[in-house]
Amino acid sequence: MIVGRVVGTVVSTRKDEALRGMTFLSVEELGRDMLPTGRHVVAVDAVGAGPGEIVLYASGSSARLTDLTRDRAVDCVIMAIIDRIDAPDRAVYVKDAPRADA
Amino acid sequence: MIVGRVVGTVVSTRKDEALRGMTFLSVEELGRDMLPTGRHVVAVDAVGAGPGEIVLYASGSSARLTDLTRDRAVDCVIMAIIDRIDAPDRAVYVKDAPRADA
Amino acid sequence: MIVGRVVGTVVSTRKDEALRGMTFLSVEELGRDMLPTGRHVVAVDAVGAGPGEIVLYASGSSARLTDLTRDRAVDCVIMAIIDRIDAPDRAVYVKDAPRADA
Amino acid sequence: MIVGRVVGTVVSTRKDEALRGMTFLSVEELGRDMLPTGRHVVAVDAVGAGPGEIVLYASGSSARLTDLTRDRAVDCVIMAIIDRIDAPDRAVYVKDAPRADA
Amino acid sequence: MIVGRVVGTVVSTRKDEALRGMTFLSVEELGRDMLPTGRHVVAVDAVGAGPGEIVLYASGSSARLTDLTRDRAVDCVIMAIIDRIDAPDRAVYVKDAPRADA
Repeated sequence: MIVGRVVGTVVSTRKDEALRGMTFLSVEELGRDMLPTGRHVVAVDAVGAGPGEIVLYASGSSARLTDLTRDRAVDCVIMAIIDRIDAPDRAVYVKDAPRADA
Repeated sequence: MIVGRVVGTVVSTRKDEALRGMTFLSVEELGRDMLPTGRHVVAVDAVGAGPGEIVLYASGSSARLTDLTRDRAVDCVIMAIIDRIDAPDRAVYVKDAPRADA
Repeated sequence: MIVGRVVGTVVSTRKDEALRGMTFLSVEELGRDMLPTGRHVVAVDAVGAGPGEIVLYASGSSARLTDLTRDRAVDCVIMAIIDRIDAPDRAVYVKDAPRADA
Repeated sequence: MIVGRVVGTVVSTRKDEALRGMTFLSVEELGRDMLPTGRHVVAVDAVGAGPGEIVLYASGSSARLTDLTRDRAVDCVIMAIIDRIDAPDRAVYVKDAPRADA
Repeated sequence: MIVGRVVGTVVSTRKDEALRGMTFLSVEELGRDMLPTGRHVVAVDAVGAGPGEIVLYASGSSARLTDLTRDRAVDCVIMAIIDRIDAPDRAVYVKDAPRADA
């Protein structure tokens, strides 16, 4: 899985029928240091994530293994909202903690 | 999924039999800022997209989960045409809105 | 799928038994401008492509969905030979047309 | 598979139901020289790995082929802890040997 | 598939049970010119390859389609040892031929 930040929403009215009712979120990939890597994906939201939240997303066939996405033509799903990431010697990320750049 | 812009059409007469009747479109990947990343794919069109349109495409086995592409040897499908992309503080893209570089 | 140019042939006598009889071709990936991107793959030929031809190849599990490659340990297949690629305002590639660098 | 170093732990309380009970580890990819490549993933731990350990991880649908991850929405799993890596002329990595940068 | 050179062996005693008895080899990816691209993977050996040999490896679910790897949590397999690679105008690689850098 990859760590990402939800940066927006994507709206589509003309799409494959089986995709109706899904929320598509714009997500930027974050590296080990929680800084953007420059890569960007659109993922289906399976957990109720919102803009600004730090999430985990899964890609490929694994993205179809949630109740919401089963057998659908989607290849990326947000399957967890991250509470915290810890390195042995420090907290890398803590949800709701003030951000240095905020 | 990845956000892309349809930039052309691809024609092939000599191809795997099961691919007859599909439309292959040339698509350039767009980054978070809607600028080309330099990556380029060819995708089957499952939604009636045309040149210049901003679309979502899915890759891998998920690309085979539309009625059109089921069990076919294709690994990329356009499964949605994007109407708009919104960040918390601004519209990133709105269909049919004038483009700065148009 | 990705657009590529066949640049050579690959011969192997010691290989997984199920791969006997397949032709392996060396393919360089081409970008939107038809110039090499630097990436390079080996693909099974399912359409009778030859050196110099511009082709489409599919990767991953989709590469196993031709009659030739079904259930085989291959992850890349040439499933179409390209006749032409058109952008809205120009022909990007036309088979058998003289090439600027030929 | 890819060689990586476990660099942290990831905690999530809001996630797809089927993911309960799994340990998510933050892993940095290592290149042939055992130096970080800059790529970073989050993997499910199927072997009891801990921070600092050098591991092998598998991606994609293969990540679902452990008892722990079967049919779950995960695309990356640590399936082995590495004891040593040998090149023909030298030991590239030996577990528990002192590290030059330690 | 990708062309690679076997550059070492990887030993692991603590691993997913279903992986017992497999040989894991360290492989560097080679580009069209047979020079390393900088990417590096660990692959299961399905053909008896040894250090220094030039091989083809398959990734993803296709890596599970050899007798040795079926339904195992592996995503990369060496499925052929290359004898030669030919471009239209020259031999790119010939097994057992002297190497310029040897």
